[in-house]
Amino acid sequence: MSRSPGRKQENHKISRELFVLTYGALVAQLCKDYEKDEDVNACLDRMGYSIGIRLIDDFLARSAVKKCRSYSETADMIAQVAFKMYLGVTPSVSCSNATGNEFSLILDKNPLVDFVEELPAERASLCYCNLLCGVIRGALEMVHLAAEVSFLQDRLKGDAVTEIGITFLRKPEDRRHRRN
Amino acid sequence: MSRSPGRKQENHKISRELFVLTYGALVAQLCKDYEKDEDVNACLDRMGYSIGIRLIDDFLARSAVKKCRSYSETADMIAQVAFKMYLGVTPSVSCSNATGNEFSLILDKNPLVDFVEELPAERASLCYCNLLCGVIRGALEMVHLAAEVSFLQDRLKGDAVTEIGITFLRKPEDRRHRRN
Repeated sequence: MSRSPGRKQENHKISRELFVLTYGALVAQLCKDYEKDEDVNACLDRMGYSIGIRLIDDFLARSAVKKCRSYSETADMIAQVAFKMYLGVTPSVSCSNATGNEFSLILDKNPLVDFVEELPAERASLCYCNLLCGVIRGALEMVHLAAEVSFLQDRLKGDAVTEIGITFLRKPEDRRHRRN
Repeated sequence: MSRSPGRKQENHKISRELFVLTYGALVAQLCKDYEKDEDVNACLDRMGYSIGIRLIDDFLARSAVKKCRSYSETADMIAQVAFKMYLGVTPSVSCSNATGNEFSLILDKNPLVDFVEELPAERASLCYCNLLCGVIRGALEMVHLAAEVSFLQDRLKGDAVTEIGITFLRKPEDRRHRRN
C-alpha cells in the first residue's frame, strides 16, 4: 500500500458518467414505483441514509481527517473533503444563522445532473438528487451528529444554483449541560 | 480546456465506493419490485442498454480510439479502454471459439461487488451486475455491432472468477456479402 499510493488512489476512482447514468436509472425506476414525488424523495433519502452510514468508514479511513471541533468545521469538511473525494466537486459553504448550526452548501455545478436537462412537468416536486441529503445525514449520524439535510435550491427547478441546507440539531445533553 | 487536461480528467472521476453503494441500492430496489430473479436480471439489462446507448458518445469522444477492424480488436478495446475508463479495472480477454466471434472478459476482481458478500439464498439466480451486460450491448449496437452479452461465471455465485461472455452476431449483410 505504502509503495504505490498513486495506483491505489486510481483504483478508487471510476468515471462519473457511468455513475450519473446509473443514478438516473435509479431515479427513473423509483418514479415508476411511486406516483407521488414526495414518496420518491423519501425513498431516495432513505437509500442515501443507508449509503451514508456505510460510506462514513470509508471516508474516515481514506481522508484521515481529525475530529471536527465545531459545526462550521464539519460543514467545511463535508464540502472540501467529502464532496471533493466522492463527487469531484467542492461546494462553497456559508453559515445561514446566528446560532451557527445552519449551513448551506452551494453547488454552481451539480455533477449528478449532467445528463438531465429538466424535470418533466408532472415531476415538479421531485428532489432529483435527494440521495445526497440522505448520504450526508447518515454519515453525520454515525459520528454522533444529528442533522436535517434538504435541498433549498435546485438548478433543475430553475434556481440559479443548487443549495443543500444542513441544520445540525443540538443534542438534548448539550442543552442540559448549557443550562446547568 | 486545453490548458488544464489534468484537471478536466479529474473532473470526470468520482469515488467508486459511492457508485458501488448506489448500484447496490438500485439492485435492492429492483429485488423489492420483482419477485423473480429473471425479471430483475432483465430489468438491469434493459437499464444498462439505455445507459450504453448514451455512454458510447462519451466513450468515443474521450477515448479518441480509431475504428476497430475485427471483433478481436473490439473485445480488446472494451476490456482495455472502456473498462479501464469507466470502472478502473482491466479484464483479461480470450477468444472462445474458432469462428472468432465469441469472447470472454475475465475479471479477477469485480469493482461493483465491493460491499456485497454473497447473494441471499432466495436470490440464487440473480445476475447482480447484469447492468454491465446491457451497457456493453447498448454501446456496441450504437457502433453497428449486434452482440449477446451475459455473465458466464460470477464470483458472487462461488465461481473462481467473474466472466462476461460477448458473442458478436454477424449481420445479414455480412453473410450476403461473403456469399457473393
